[in-house]
Amino acid sequence: MKNQIPAATVARLPRYLRCLSDMVDSGANCSSEQLAEVAGVNSAQVRKDFSCLGSSGTRGVGYDINDLRNQIRNVLGLTRTYPVVVVGAGNLGSALTNYKGFEAWGFEVVAVVDIDDAKIGEPVDGLEVESMYRLGEIVEERGIEIGIIATPAIAAQGVANRLADAGITSILNLAPTVLRIPDGVYIRRVDISTEMGILAFHRNT
Amino acid sequence: MKNQIPAATVARLPRYLRCLSDMVDSGANCSSEQLAEVAGVNSAQVRKDFSCLGSSGTRGVGYDINDLRNQIRNVLGLTRTYPVVVVGAGNLGSALTNYKGFEAWGFEVVAVVDIDDAKIGEPVDGLEVESMYRLGEIVEERGIEIGIIATPAIAAQGVANRLADAGITSILNLAPTVLRIPDGVYIRRVDISTEMGILAFHRNT
Repeated sequence: MKNQIPAATVARLPRYLRCLSDMVDSGANCSSEQLAEVAGVNSAQVRKDFSCLGSSGTRGVGYDINDLRNQIRNVLGLTRTYPVVVVGAGNLGSALTNYKGFEAWGFEVVAVVDIDDAKIGEPVDGLEVESMYRLGEIVEERGIEIGIIATPAIAAQGVANRLADAGITSILNLAPTVLRIPDGVYIRRVDISTEMGILAFHRNT
Repeated sequence: MKNQIPAATVARLPRYLRCLSDMVDSGANCSSEQLAEVAGVNSAQVRKDFSCLGSSGTRGVGYDINDLRNQIRNVLGLTRTYPVVVVGAGNLGSALTNYKGFEAWGFEVVAVVDIDDAKIGEPVDGLEVESMYRLGEIVEERGIEIGIIATPAIAAQGVANRLADAGITSILNLAPTVLRIPDGVYIRRVDISTEMGILAFHRNT
Protein backbone atom coordinates (compact mmCIF):
# COMPACT_ATOMS: atom_id res chain seq x y z
CA MET A 1 0.00 0.00 0.00
CA LYS A 2 2.79 2.38 0.92
CA ASN A 3 3.96 2.73 -2.64
CA GLN A 4 0.50 3.85 -3.67
CA ILE A 5 0.41 6.84 -1.37
CA PRO A 6 1.01 9.98 -3.45
CA ALA A 7 4.23 11.84 -2.59
CA ALA A 8 2.26 15.00 -1.78
CA THR A 9 0.19 13.07 0.77
CA VAL A 10 3.35 11.59 2.30
CA ALA A 11 4.78 15.10 2.61
CA ARG A 12 1.66 16.19 4.55
CA LEU A 13 1.50 13.18 6.89
CA PRO A 14 4.23 14.35 9.31
CA ARG A 15 2.47 17.72 9.56
CA TYR A 16 -0.81 16.00 10.42
CA LEU A 17 1.07 13.94 12.99
CA ARG A 18 2.49 17.12 14.52
CA CYS A 19 -0.99 18.70 14.65
CA LEU A 20 -2.63 15.57 16.09
CA SER A 21 0.07 15.33 18.76
CA ASP A 22 -0.70 18.93 19.72
CA MET A 23 -4.45 18.19 19.77
CA VAL A 24 -4.29 15.10 21.93
CA ASP A 25 -4.90 16.99 25.17
CA SER A 26 -8.12 18.58 23.96
CA GLY A 27 -10.15 15.43 23.26
CA ALA A 28 -10.20 11.93 21.83
CA ASN A 29 -11.60 12.86 18.43
CA CYS A 30 -11.18 15.54 15.83
CA SER A 31 -13.02 16.44 12.66
CA SER A 32 -11.36 16.87 9.29
CA GLU A 33 -12.29 20.56 9.54
CA GLN A 34 -10.47 21.00 12.87
CA LEU A 35 -7.39 19.23 11.61
CA ALA A 36 -7.51 21.13 8.32
CA GLU A 37 -7.53 24.42 10.18
CA VAL A 38 -4.49 23.71 12.33
CA ALA A 39 -2.59 22.01 9.50
CA GLY A 40 -3.31 24.86 7.09
CA VAL A 41 -4.88 22.75 4.32
CA ASN A 42 -8.52 22.38 3.27
CA SER A 43 -10.72 19.72 4.84
CA ALA A 44 -11.41 17.89 1.56
CA GLN A 45 -7.66 17.41 1.26
CA VAL A 46 -7.49 16.00 4.79
CA ARG A 47 -10.25 13.49 4.03
CA LYS A 48 -8.62 12.51 0.74
CA ASP A 49 -5.20 12.06 2.37
CA PHE A 50 -6.61 9.85 5.13
CA SER A 51 -8.64 7.79 2.70
CA CYS A 52 -5.27 6.92 1.08
CA LEU A 53 -4.37 5.40 4.46
CA GLY A 54 -7.66 3.53 4.53
CA SER A 55 -9.01 5.75 7.30
CA SER A 56 -12.37 7.40 6.83
CA GLY A 57 -13.44 8.60 10.27
CA THR A 58 -16.94 8.29 11.71
CA ARG A 59 -19.74 10.60 10.59
CA GLY A 60 -20.58 13.07 13.33
CA VAL A 61 -17.66 11.92 15.48
CA GLY A 62 -14.64 12.47 13.26
CA TYR A 63 -11.34 10.69 13.53
CA ASP A 64 -10.01 8.95 16.61
CA ILE A 65 -6.86 10.97 17.28
CA ASN A 66 -4.83 8.14 18.77
CA ASP A 67 -5.79 5.69 16.03
CA LEU A 68 -4.88 8.20 13.40
CA ARG A 69 -1.53 8.98 15.02
CA ASN A 70 -0.69 5.28 15.16
CA GLN A 71 -1.72 4.83 11.57
CA ILE A 72 0.44 7.73 10.38
CA ARG A 73 3.38 6.49 12.47
CA ASN A 74 2.98 3.06 10.89
CA VAL A 75 2.90 4.40 7.36
CA LEU A 76 5.89 6.68 7.90
CA GLY A 77 7.82 3.99 9.74
CA LEU A 78 8.00 5.99 12.97
CA THR A 79 7.52 2.87 15.07
CA ARG A 80 11.17 2.36 15.90
CA THR A 81 14.33 4.36 16.65
CA TYR A 82 16.53 5.80 13.92
CA PRO A 83 20.14 6.46 14.93
CA VAL A 84 21.28 9.82 13.54
CA VAL A 85 24.66 11.50 13.01
CA VAL A 86 24.90 15.29 13.02
CA VAL A 87 27.76 16.66 10.92
CA GLY A 88 28.94 20.06 12.13
CA ALA A 89 29.27 20.93 15.81
CA GLY A 90 28.63 24.66 15.50
CA ASN A 91 25.59 26.35 16.99
CA LEU A 92 23.17 24.71 14.57
CA GLY A 93 24.65 21.23 14.96
CA SER A 94 24.63 21.64 18.75
CA ALA A 95 21.02 22.81 18.66
CA LEU A 96 20.03 19.71 16.69
CA THR A 97 21.98 17.40 18.97
CA ASN A 98 20.21 18.92 21.96
CA TYR A 99 16.88 19.02 20.16
CA LYS A 100 14.22 17.49 22.39
CA GLY A 101 11.66 17.44 19.57
CA PHE A 102 13.36 14.44 17.93
CA GLU A 103 12.77 11.97 20.73
CA ALA A 104 9.03 11.63 20.36
CA TRP A 105 9.54 10.84 16.68
CA GLY A 106 12.17 8.17 17.27
CA PHE A 107 15.18 10.08 15.97
CA GLU A 108 18.15 9.64 18.27
CA VAL A 109 21.33 11.61 17.69
CA VAL A 110 24.06 9.11 18.56
CA ALA A 111 27.04 10.99 17.13
CA VAL A 112 28.11 14.52 16.29
CA VAL A 113 31.20 14.94 14.14
CA ASP A 114 33.28 17.90 12.97
CA ILE A 115 36.58 18.51 11.19
CA ASP A 116 37.67 21.26 13.60
CA ASP A 117 40.29 19.98 16.08
CA ALA A 118 39.20 22.66 18.55
CA LYS A 119 35.71 21.14 18.69
CA ILE A 120 36.64 17.46 18.71
CA GLY A 121 36.39 16.07 22.24
CA GLU A 122 34.09 18.86 23.43
CA PRO A 123 30.82 17.76 25.08
CA VAL A 124 27.48 18.31 23.34
CA ASP A 125 24.42 17.12 25.24
CA GLY A 126 25.98 13.98 26.68
CA LEU A 127 27.92 13.18 23.52
CA GLU A 128 31.48 14.11 22.66
CA VAL A 129 32.26 15.67 19.30
CA GLU A 130 34.14 13.12 17.21
CA SER A 131 36.35 13.48 14.17
CA MET A 132 34.71 13.56 10.76
CA TYR A 133 37.54 11.31 9.61
CA ARG A 134 36.12 8.49 11.75
CA LEU A 135 32.67 8.83 10.11
CA GLY A 136 32.75 5.45 8.34
CA GLU A 137 33.58 3.54 11.53
CA ILE A 138 31.06 5.49 13.60
CA VAL A 139 28.24 4.83 11.13
CA GLU A 140 29.03 1.13 11.08
CA GLU A 141 29.53 0.74 14.86
CA ARG A 142 26.25 2.47 15.74
CA GLY A 143 24.07 1.42 12.82
CA ILE A 144 23.47 5.03 11.87
CA GLU A 145 20.73 5.48 9.27
CA ILE A 146 20.28 9.23 8.85
CA GLY A 147 22.81 12.03 8.49
CA ILE A 148 22.08 15.70 9.16
CA ILE A 149 24.30 18.27 7.48
CA ALA A 150 24.72 21.33 9.71
CA THR A 151 27.89 22.78 8.20
CA PRO A 152 28.54 26.02 6.32
CA ALA A 153 27.32 25.93 2.71
CA ILE A 154 30.81 25.59 1.29
CA ALA A 155 31.48 22.31 3.13
CA ALA A 156 28.09 20.69 2.54
CA GLN A 157 28.68 18.93 -0.80
CA GLY A 158 31.84 17.26 0.49
CA VAL A 159 29.96 16.14 3.59
CA ALA A 160 27.11 14.71 1.52
CA ASN A 161 29.62 12.71 -0.51
CA ARG A 162 31.34 11.42 2.63
CA LEU A 163 28.00 10.45 4.19
CA ALA A 164 27.12 8.54 1.02
CA ASP A 165 30.56 6.85 1.06
CA ALA A 166 29.89 5.83 4.67
CA GLY A 167 26.68 4.11 3.54
CA ILE A 168 24.17 6.76 4.66
CA THR A 169 21.27 6.91 2.20
CA SER A 170 19.01 9.39 4.04
CA ILE A 171 20.23 12.94 4.48
CA LEU A 172 18.69 16.11 5.87
CA ASN A 173 20.51 19.17 4.56
CA LEU A 174 20.35 22.33 6.66
CA ALA A 175 23.24 24.07 4.91
CA PRO A 176 22.03 26.93 2.71
CA THR A 177 23.01 25.39 -0.61
CA VAL A 178 21.60 22.92 -3.11
CA LEU A 179 23.47 19.61 -3.19
CA ARG A 180 24.16 17.28 -6.06
CA ILE A 181 22.65 14.09 -4.76
CA PRO A 182 24.92 11.05 -4.73
CA ASP A 183 23.39 7.94 -6.38
CA GLY A 184 20.96 6.02 -4.21
CA VAL A 185 20.72 8.77 -1.60
CA TYR A 186 17.51 10.57 -0.63
CA ILE A 187 17.94 14.15 0.55
CA ARG A 188 15.45 16.52 2.17
CA ARG A 189 16.42 20.09 2.81
CA VAL A 190 15.43 22.70 5.33
CA ASP A 191 16.34 26.12 3.98
CA ILE A 192 15.48 28.80 6.48
CA SER A 193 16.23 31.72 4.15
CA THR A 194 13.75 30.48 1.56
CA GLU A 195 10.99 30.45 4.19
CA MET A 196 12.01 33.98 5.16
CA GLY A 197 11.78 34.91 1.47
CA ILE A 198 8.15 33.81 1.43
CA LEU A 199 7.51 35.95 4.52
CA ALA A 200 9.06 38.91 2.70
CA PHE A 201 6.77 38.36 -0.30
CA HIS A 202 3.68 38.46 1.91
CA ARG A 203 4.82 41.74 3.50
CA ASN A 204 4.75 43.30 0.06
CA THR A 205 1.36 42.18 -1.19
CA MET B 1 0.86 41.54 -10.93
CA LYS B 2 2.10 40.17 -7.60
CA ASN B 3 -1.34 39.24 -6.47
CA GLN B 4 -1.82 37.12 -9.54
CA ILE B 5 1.14 34.85 -8.85
CA PRO B 6 -0.15 31.52 -7.53
CA ALA B 7 0.86 30.74 -3.95
CA ALA B 8 2.54 27.51 -5.06
CA THR B 9 4.72 29.49 -7.48
CA VAL B 10 5.59 32.00 -4.76
CA ALA B 11 6.62 29.11 -2.52
CA ARG B 12 9.01 27.85 -5.21
CA LEU B 13 10.58 31.22 -6.08
CA PRO B 14 12.97 31.34 -3.10
CA ARG B 15 14.14 27.84 -3.95
CA TYR B 16 14.83 28.90 -7.54
CA LEU B 17 16.69 31.91 -6.18
CA ARG B 18 18.82 29.64 -3.99
CA CYS B 19 19.58 27.36 -6.97
CA LEU B 20 20.36 30.27 -9.30
CA SER B 21 22.70 31.78 -6.69
CA ASP B 22 24.52 28.46 -6.52
CA MET B 23 24.71 28.28 -10.35
CA VAL B 24 26.05 31.77 -10.92
CA ASP B 25 29.70 30.65 -10.99
CA SER B 26 29.13 28.10 -13.72
CA GLY B 27 27.90 30.43 -16.49
CA ALA B 28 25.69 33.35 -17.42
CA ASN B 29 22.70 31.30 -18.61
CA CYS B 30 20.80 28.23 -17.61
CA SER B 31 18.10 26.15 -19.25
CA SER B 32 14.79 25.31 -17.60
CA GLU B 33 15.99 21.68 -17.57
CA GLN B 34 19.17 22.54 -15.64
CA LEU B 35 17.27 24.61 -13.13
CA ALA B 36 14.54 21.97 -12.84
CA GLU B 37 17.13 19.34 -12.01
CA VAL B 38 18.80 21.26 -9.18
CA ALA B 39 15.50 22.59 -7.83
CA GLY B 40 13.90 19.13 -7.89
CA VAL B 41 10.84 20.07 -9.97
CA ASN B 42 10.03 19.32 -13.60
CA SER B 43 11.10 21.68 -16.36
CA ALA B 44 7.56 22.42 -17.55
CA GLN B 45 6.85 23.70 -14.03
CA VAL B 46 9.92 25.92 -14.14
CA ARG B 47 8.82 27.46 -17.45
CA LYS B 48 5.28 27.95 -16.18
CA ASP B 49 6.46 29.57 -12.95
CA PHE B 50 8.73 31.99 -14.80
CA SER B 51 6.06 32.84 -17.33
CA CYS B 52 4.01 34.07 -14.32
CA LEU B 53 6.87 36.53 -13.74
CA GLY B 54 6.75 37.54 -17.40
CA SER B 55 10.08 35.83 -18.09
CA SER B 56 10.26 33.38 -20.95
CA GLY B 57 13.97 32.85 -21.62
CA THR B 58 15.58 32.69 -25.08
CA ARG B 59 15.25 29.61 -27.24
CA GLY B 60 18.57 27.74 -27.38
CA VAL B 61 20.13 30.03 -24.77
CA GLY B 62 17.88 29.67 -21.76
CA TYR B 63 17.44 32.19 -18.99
CA ASP B 64 19.92 34.89 -18.08
CA ILE B 65 20.79 33.89 -14.52
CA ASN B 66 21.40 37.41 -13.23
CA ASP B 67 18.24 38.82 -14.82
CA LEU B 68 16.21 36.01 -13.36
CA ARG B 69 17.70 36.46 -9.88
CA ASN B 70 16.89 40.16 -9.99
CA GLN B 71 13.37 39.46 -11.16
CA ILE B 72 12.75 36.95 -8.37
CA ARG B 73 14.26 39.34 -5.79
CA ASN B 74 11.94 42.07 -7.06
CA VAL B 75 8.85 39.91 -6.86
CA LEU B 76 9.68 38.59 -3.39
CA GLY B 77 10.66 42.05 -2.13
CA LEU B 78 14.25 41.01 -1.42
CA THR B 79 15.58 44.33 -2.62
CA ARG B 80 15.99 45.88 0.80
CA THR B 81 16.94 44.95 4.36
CA TYR B 82 14.45 43.42 6.80
CA PRO B 83 15.31 43.90 10.49
CA VAL B 84 14.66 40.67 12.40
CA VAL B 85 14.29 39.76 16.07
CA VAL B 86 15.16 36.25 17.25
CA VAL B 87 13.21 35.11 20.31
CA GLY B 88 15.09 32.48 22.30
CA ALA B 89 18.84 32.65 22.90
CA GLY B 90 19.46 28.91 23.19
CA ASN B 91 21.53 26.98 20.69
CA LEU B 92 18.98 27.36 17.91
CA GLY B 93 18.45 31.08 18.49
CA SER B 94 22.21 31.61 18.64
CA ALA B 95 22.67 29.62 15.45
CA LEU B 96 20.12 31.83 13.69
CA THR B 97 21.63 35.03 15.05
CA ASN B 98 25.03 33.92 13.75
CA TYR B 99 23.58 32.60 10.53
CA LYS B 100 25.56 33.97 7.61
CA GLY B 101 23.05 32.73 5.06
CA PHE B 102 20.61 35.53 5.94
CA GLU B 103 22.79 38.42 4.83
CA ALA B 104 22.66 37.74 1.10
CA TRP B 105 18.86 37.71 1.33
CA GLY B 106 18.62 41.00 3.23
CA PHE B 107 17.53 39.59 6.60
CA GLU B 108 19.43 41.28 9.41
CA VAL B 109 19.10 40.03 12.97
CA VAL B 110 19.15 43.24 15.01
CA ALA B 111 17.98 41.80 18.34
CA VAL B 112 17.90 38.53 20.23
CA VAL B 113 15.67 38.32 23.28
CA ASP B 114 15.07 35.73 25.99
CA ILE B 115 13.23 35.50 29.31
CA ASP B 116 16.13 33.74 31.07
CA ASP B 117 18.03 36.17 33.33
CA ALA B 118 21.14 34.01 33.00
CA LYS B 119 21.19 34.65 29.25
CA ILE B 120 20.26 38.34 29.24
CA GLY B 121 23.37 40.45 28.73
CA GLU B 122 25.37 37.59 27.21
CA PRO B 123 26.95 38.29 23.80
CA VAL B 124 25.66 36.53 20.67
CA ASP B 125 27.47 37.39 17.44
CA GLY B 126 28.01 41.07 18.20
CA LEU B 127 24.61 41.52 19.83
CA GLU B 128 23.72 41.27 23.49
CA VAL B 129 20.77 39.15 24.58
CA GLU B 130 17.99 41.48 25.74
CA SER B 131 14.96 40.91 27.91
CA MET B 132 11.81 39.59 26.26
CA TYR B 133 9.94 42.11 28.43
CA ARG B 134 11.49 44.93 26.38
CA LEU B 135 10.23 43.41 23.10
CA GLY B 136 7.73 46.17 22.32
CA GLU B 137 10.29 48.96 22.72
CA ILE B 138 12.96 47.04 20.80
CA VAL B 139 10.62 46.40 17.86
CA GLU B 140 9.66 50.05 17.71
CA GLU B 141 13.19 51.46 18.17
CA ARG B 142 14.71 49.28 15.44
CA GLY B 143 11.80 49.05 13.03
CA ILE B 144 11.76 45.27 13.30
CA GLU B 145 9.54 43.58 10.71
CA ILE B 146 10.06 39.84 11.18
CA GLY B 147 10.16 37.69 14.33
CA ILE B 148 11.73 34.24 14.53
CA ILE B 149 10.53 31.93 17.29
CA ALA B 150 13.38 29.69 18.49
CA THR B 151 12.01 28.71 21.88
CA PRO B 152 10.89 25.34 23.27
CA ALA B 153 7.45 24.24 21.99
CA ILE B 154 5.73 25.03 25.26
CA ALA B 155 6.69 28.74 25.14
CA ALA B 156 6.00 29.31 21.45
CA GLN B 157 2.32 30.29 21.52
CA GLY B 158 2.91 32.92 24.19
CA VAL B 159 5.82 34.30 22.17
CA ALA B 160 3.68 34.46 19.00
CA ASN B 161 1.06 36.44 20.90
CA ARG B 162 3.67 38.83 22.31
CA LEU B 163 5.22 39.33 18.88
CA ALA B 164 1.78 40.15 17.49
CA ASP B 165 1.16 42.56 20.41
CA ALA B 166 4.46 44.24 19.58
CA GLY B 167 3.21 44.81 16.03
CA ILE B 168 5.12 42.02 14.27
CA THR B 169 2.99 40.61 11.45
CA SER B 170 5.54 38.20 9.90
CA ILE B 171 6.71 35.26 11.99
CA LEU B 172 8.90 32.26 11.29
CA ASN B 173 8.21 29.48 13.79
CA LEU B 174 10.99 26.99 14.44
CA ALA B 175 9.47 25.59 17.63
CA PRO B 176 8.09 22.06 17.12
CA THR B 177 4.45 22.93 17.62
CA VAL B 178 1.57 24.30 15.60
CA LEU B 179 0.57 27.83 16.58
CA ARG B 180 -2.82 29.49 16.62
CA ILE B 181 -2.16 32.44 14.42
CA PRO B 182 -3.04 35.83 15.87
CA ASP B 183 -5.24 37.99 13.59
CA GLY B 184 -3.42 39.77 10.81
CA VAL B 185 -0.22 37.78 11.31
CA TYR B 186 1.39 35.59 8.67
CA ILE B 187 3.35 32.61 9.99
CA ARG B 188 5.65 30.19 8.19
CA ARG B 189 7.03 27.21 10.01
CA VAL B 190 10.17 25.15 9.75
CA ASP B 191 9.60 21.81 11.44
CA ILE B 192 12.72 19.70 11.30
CA SER B 193 11.07 16.56 12.71
CA THR B 194 8.48 16.51 9.95
CA GLU B 195 11.24 16.55 7.32
CA MET B 196 12.92 13.71 9.20
CA GLY B 197 9.58 11.87 9.12
CA ILE B 198 9.57 12.03 5.33
CA LEU B 199 13.11 10.64 5.31
CA ALA B 200 11.92 7.75 7.51
CA PHE B 201 9.07 6.99 5.10
CA HIS B 202 11.47 6.72 2.17
CA ARG B 203 13.71 4.31 4.10
CA ASN B 204 10.74 1.98 4.38
CA THR B 205 9.51 1.91 0.78
